[in-house]
Amino acid sequence: MWRELLPVGRHPDSGGYRRYAWTGADLECREWFRRQAADRGLRYEVDRNGNQWAWAGDPEGRRDAVVTGSHLDSVPDGGAFDGPLGVVSAFAALDELLARGVRARRPLGVVNFGDEEGARFGLACVGSRLSAGQLSREAAHRLRDADGVGLASAMERAGYDPDGIGADPERWAGVGAFVELHVEQGRALATDDPDGRGGGPAPVGVASAIWPHGRWRFDFHGEGNHAGTTRLADRRDPMLSYAQTVRAAREQARLTGALATFAKVSVEPNGVNAIASLVRGWLDSRAPDEGTLGKLVEEVERAAAEEARREGVRLEVTRESFTPVTEFEDALRNRLLELLGDGGDRRVPVLPTGAGHDAGILSASVPTAMLYVRNPTGVSHSPAEFAEEDDCVAGVGALADVLEGLLTS
Amino acid sequence: MWRELLPVGRHPDSGGYRRYAWTGADLECREWFRRQAADRGLRYEVDRNGNQWAWAGDPEGRRDAVVTGSHLDSVPDGGAFDGPLGVVSAFAALDELLARGVRARRPLGVVNFGDEEGARFGLACVGSRLSAGQLSREAAHRLRDADGVGLASAMERAGYDPDGIGADPERWAGVGAFVELHVEQGRALATDDPDGRGGGPAPVGVASAIWPHGRWRFDFHGEGNHAGTTRLADRRDPMLSYAQTVRAAREQARLTGALATFAKVSVEPNGVNAIASLVRGWLDSRAPDEGTLGKLVEEVERAAAEEARREGVRLEVTRESFTPVTEFEDALRNRLLELLGDGGDRRVPVLPTGAGHDAGILSASVPTAMLYVRNPTGVSHSPAEFAEEDDCVAGVGALADVLEGLLTS
Repeated sequence: MWRELLPVGRHPDSGGYRRYAWTGADLECREWFRRQAADRGLRYEVDRNGNQWAWAGDPEGRRDAVVTGSHLDSVPDGGAFDGPLGVVSAFAALDELLARGVRARRPLGVVNFGDEEGARFGLACVGSRLSAGQLSREAAHRLRDADGVGLASAMERAGYDPDGIGADPERWAGVGAFVELHVEQGRALATDDPDGRGGGPAPVGVASAIWPHGRWRFDFHGEGNHAGTTRLADRRDPMLSYAQTVRAAREQARLTGALATFAKVSVEPNGVNAIASLVRGWLDSRAPDEGTLGKLVEEVERAAAEEARREGVRLEVTRESFTPVTEFEDALRNRLLELLGDGGDRRVPVLPTGAGHDAGILSASVPTAMLYVRNPTGVSHSPAEFAEEDDCVAGVGALADVLEGLLTS
Repeated sequence: MWRELLPVGRHPDSGGYRRYAWTGADLECREWFRRQAADRGLRYEVDRNGNQWAWAGDPEGRRDAVVTGSHLDSVPDGGAFDGPLGVVSAFAALDELLARGVRARRPLGVVNFGDEEGARFGLACVGSRLSAGQLSREAAHRLRDADGVGLASAMERAGYDPDGIGADPERWAGVGAFVELHVEQGRALATDDPDGRGGGPAPVGVASAIWPHGRWRFDFHGEGNHAGTTRLADRRDPMLSYAQTVRAAREQARLTGALATFAKVSVEPNGVNAIASLVRGWLDSRAPDEGTLGKLVEEVERAAAEEARREGVRLEVTRESFTPVTEFEDALRNRLLELLGDGGDRRVPVLPTGAGHDAGILSASVPTAMLYVRNPTGVSHSPAEFAEEDDCVAGVGALADVLEGLLTS
């Protein structure tokens, strides 16, 4: 199952995955999902937002269905695990439940959410956002990719109907619990003390919360000029202000125990011998709580403004997105810990994360929980992303334990 | 004459010029040049490298022709003066000589060199380099623009023959002096002490030398990873090393009285939430002498390497181009100063520049000199580039004085 999916959308040069929503590679992944459903005799359906479903049991008229799954799309040159591990583990856990002879008292759904990474249209979790009513049809229809292709025509070209997209409250009213398994995107589970409660490294952990996070665009407007003739004193070079702001962001992250990253930059005119007239840098920042995040961004803005003033550069800062903290439901998390045998000598680590997930979106609509599988290097969103086979197997076992508990109680 | 040329290739949004070699805007400029020659009854010709010439008098068999001119192409969103001022002033000075009734003892040529800025094919001074034998036909035929169009097919599409391009020693053997007038690309002439000899601001100056200059590419290889989950301690973020290097370059320039600029950067994967795996930055640096330049670049490399080591980033530095110092011929420079009345109470400033010019290329083949016209803001390679009309008139007068002296002696 895993082996079949591995080559799809893998770039021959980078070894990374380029599975962008509604492209050929994405459609191959979707065809793989449909086959997995068919091979197991599961009822296959596509919801109004293009998310794929495979059902064991009939959810019609129920209020207590259990759903698990993740996504199959990737960031540019992403790894093999972010997303697909959750979908593959869902089918594998289902197989395990059958092998165990579990008699489910309620239906089980496996889901593949569309366009989780937002690599093509710039907005993450489009499939789950639409479904949960957190993104309107109108706003979704305004999304454009880098070539100017709209989401609607991309869906249409891929054979999906874009007219019916939008909130799907009835579907979620039928779901009693959603559990997403995901490769950890850090290496806490690989350390001696994953969550401050001791207990040593562990193959599987449970999510506590998703940190509040956001994106801020810093536009440094300077003065274009000849790099070979303009005296230093006559320059208004925005690259210098940008450079200082990159350093300030790292320093603030260090001081506050948060994360702050400049990873995307755009320069005009971007010529070797022409002092930049505009440097645009994007700050991605996340912190354990909103107060810390707000303070961090404020300090970075202050440092940027001071530096810009010194260089005669004009600074504009725009908040492009912001997601408040997501706390997963206590009751479901505690149930998972219980089903996984946490307590006494055994500790199942409980971890926060800085990464957004479909589970974070859905936690506003249904009781939601997440399982993390150990990532020994912590590398993610990169071809080097990796998890040990034993840990993946442990993840499937843990997911099966959780599903068994939820389906049979 | 100036007014006719002003609208050609001017971008309606930026107000800057986009006159790239062998494009429509360039061909319009060339048609303008042909008309100027025809209107004055000058003999018009295009040399084997696509440079345009207009001759008063017959250079055939001579060894003492006087040539003046510059270029008509522009950098992206460049100003109106860089290049065109030299060509327009050449025709205007010729008109002035006629008005003065000057009887020339030798032929006078006006030249428009092709592709001086290198905006399209990435190499500056292609027309003069080919002509002076500093760029081989084979190497020129390997040049490609951003769309993959080769120089040869670009010339062909524009109606020029690319097969005959190459060194043109006979043409230059017939030339006794080349004088290029150019807008100053700094604001020394506008200051109280343009060249350290006192004397106050001046509308026109004479070139001493072109600083040695070069381009170095700094490749910082880090590790792509998730910006929202990777602990600071686990990062190898090349953006930090780049930022520190930008600061170090400015600091070294300040300490050594040289120029150092990072104005072009390329990031992979350049995603907001993916720590960069590669940041590539280009250093443009120029200094009064090669020793200072070498020392500066060495210090910047040292700072970059130290910073990269600290962050676990791998650094590669590639020298992409290097041009040694160009000293214009003493005898011709002194002749210009004499013709312009330097000495006693009057001082004609003598200035070095960091900018490359066709005159710099040709100085290896023929006695060459340059005149600069005051640039009150120092801004160049930008739509804001400017020179006062009075100063442009003074430039034409100075060029006419120089040409009169050279043609009649």
